[in-house]
Amino acid sequence: MRHRVTIDGVFPLERGGTLSDVTVDVRTWGRHRKNATLICHALTGDADADAWWAGLFGTDRLFDPATGYTVAMNVLGSCVGTTGPTSERPDGEGTYGADFPDVTIRDMVNIQRRVLELLNVQKLDLVIGGSMGGMQVLEWALMYPEMVDTIVPIAVGSAQSAWAVGISDAQRSAITSDPKFRGGHYPADDPPRDGLRTARMFAMITYRAPTEFSSRFGRSLVDGDFAVQSYLRYQGDKLVDRFDANTYLTLIDAMDSHDLGRGRGPIEAILRRIEARTLVVGISSDVLYPVGEVRELAAGIPGARFAVLDSNAGHDGFLVDVEALNRIVLTELRERVTEEVSPGSGAAWA
Amino acid sequence: MRHRVTIDGVFPLERGGTLSDVTVDVRTWGRHRKNATLICHALTGDADADAWWAGLFGTDRLFDPATGYTVAMNVLGSCVGTTGPTSERPDGEGTYGADFPDVTIRDMVNIQRRVLELLNVQKLDLVIGGSMGGMQVLEWALMYPEMVDTIVPIAVGSAQSAWAVGISDAQRSAITSDPKFRGGHYPADDPPRDGLRTARMFAMITYRAPTEFSSRFGRSLVDGDFAVQSYLRYQGDKLVDRFDANTYLTLIDAMDSHDLGRGRGPIEAILRRIEARTLVVGISSDVLYPVGEVRELAAGIPGARFAVLDSNAGHDGFLVDVEALNRIVLTELRERVTEEVSPGSGAAWA
Repeated sequence: MRHRVTIDGVFPLERGGTLSDVTVDVRTWGRHRKNATLICHALTGDADADAWWAGLFGTDRLFDPATGYTVAMNVLGSCVGTTGPTSERPDGEGTYGADFPDVTIRDMVNIQRRVLELLNVQKLDLVIGGSMGGMQVLEWALMYPEMVDTIVPIAVGSAQSAWAVGISDAQRSAITSDPKFRGGHYPADDPPRDGLRTARMFAMITYRAPTEFSSRFGRSLVDGDFAVQSYLRYQGDKLVDRFDANTYLTLIDAMDSHDLGRGRGPIEAILRRIEARTLVVGISSDVLYPVGEVRELAAGIPGARFAVLDSNAGHDGFLVDVEALNRIVLTELRERVTEEVSPGSGAAWA
Repeated sequence: MRHRVTIDGVFPLERGGTLSDVTVDVRTWGRHRKNATLICHALTGDADADAWWAGLFGTDRLFDPATGYTVAMNVLGSCVGTTGPTSERPDGEGTYGADFPDVTIRDMVNIQRRVLELLNVQKLDLVIGGSMGGMQVLEWALMYPEMVDTIVPIAVGSAQSAWAVGISDAQRSAITSDPKFRGGHYPADDPPRDGLRTARMFAMITYRAPTEFSSRFGRSLVDGDFAVQSYLRYQGDKLVDRFDANTYLTLIDAMDSHDLGRGRGPIEAILRRIEARTLVVGISSDVLYPVGEVRELAAGIPGARFAVLDSNAGHDGFLVDVEALNRIVLTELRERVTEEVSPGSGAAWA
């Protein structure tokens, strides 16, 4: 079911700005319950998790509408249904555009909590997501520990690394140096297509992996260009057709803000505060959030389990190798249930 | 000593074009000999190897002017002394600019051989280089086997991988979509600075490594920006000040052309033809030419040795961790000499 939820009134943001009457695009699957599973999406994702995570939906899958209630929302600051730079300002003075305020991962989570309240969801059995989704998952465990039972952050670290910040910044440079960007004040019908396309081409590389590219494209040609060039340009054009440059910048800024320690204290101490049952999943071929960094996150969370998703697809492995991901997460969740009914075995998740 | 060598007459290129009266910037160190060591530089390098590979020059170093004769040249198609897109056309009609013909790694090697002939160098005891330099090293062994004794290709594969081609193409997109690029026909005083800067920022990331960025920059700030952002922008600006966009495109095209099998046959069979003593060096943290790919190159060359340079600096490790590189290569070369004087031990390099 699709819901368009509006959060009436002024919504304060972590960085100091405010937004009024935030609208959120929400999808739910299964019969309403007070206990739900929350899916958090990545950078250019949306609420339609049954499309981009189709393999995780159904019988014997993580998200089974027959047995559970699952919720996904487009994040704050995006352009696929939820209030963001392309939304109309409440005062009727056109869209926000470049004036959209800075949002953080914590703001995204705060909005999600407000929506869940309106949906009368009181507990989250599971919060799961990869990449920027994983950042939200981790913030959920710290911001609303009383609501969260189990978290599964995938392909993410405890803070955005210098490596990932650098990768964001090369993309930012591509977008903001496109003359059509005009400091963010571009008309909707003449956006900085070239800059966003280049940014996406670069991003796509960091989402995949060397061996996958070799086996998939090799040095084969398509119309005189290398097949990998055609692929990247196609991916670039595809994003330009469905996404907005100011939105892209808003969301990579939010990702760069990701730091579980920000304003809280040393990151080691903050990780120790996480009480939710935790399964951290790293991806073997991830270039953007290398598996060592993800393992380190897991090592810092009390009792967290760590699993490696063996994938050639790089960072995108969590969207590509969904069979394996489903198996890994489901196995952990089921083991946990078994352990809970057999007394005295509560340490198995430690 | 610096030499400006001109190769008189028409020089035919692999892709079908020609160049007239090619000028090459050449540096030599040590007293002239008929046996020399040749240093091949990477993408934005030049003939001044005693600057960018300073740590390899001197007593107990790979390049010891007291005992050997070492040569380095700026490659064909570059803009640091050798004929390339910024050079004047022989007909006096301005610079080549976008009309500079396509060059390949093999063209670079052919020019180098002509220069060595003019310098009266008949044998190359050692040909060494990393990245694009490594591509030239490998072509030397196949194109002029009778001249080459030992090769040390570093951080390179037998052909430019789809991964590296993709990384080139995102950079190409940044440059060519800058409106100031004007299809390559930009005036010298108004080049596509933004596009080249963005390309370099992206490239710099692929030259380094995640753990290095984390330990070097972490999430520290400089004037409100992340330190890694300042670093990348500085690197971008620095390149824009010293390099030319058409040249950059000419050279990444040449790198993308790298394929030892091109026009020769299956790559496995071609690698087996290499008769030079070979030490292949891979870099443990290399993101651009991952160590597995470099190991595979070594495995295909009869009797080749393979060494891993343990470095946190990523692909740039061969420019950064020169102490270790010097030790690795010198050890191999000396072992070889010892083996040659002790009869019957010729198999130690196999």
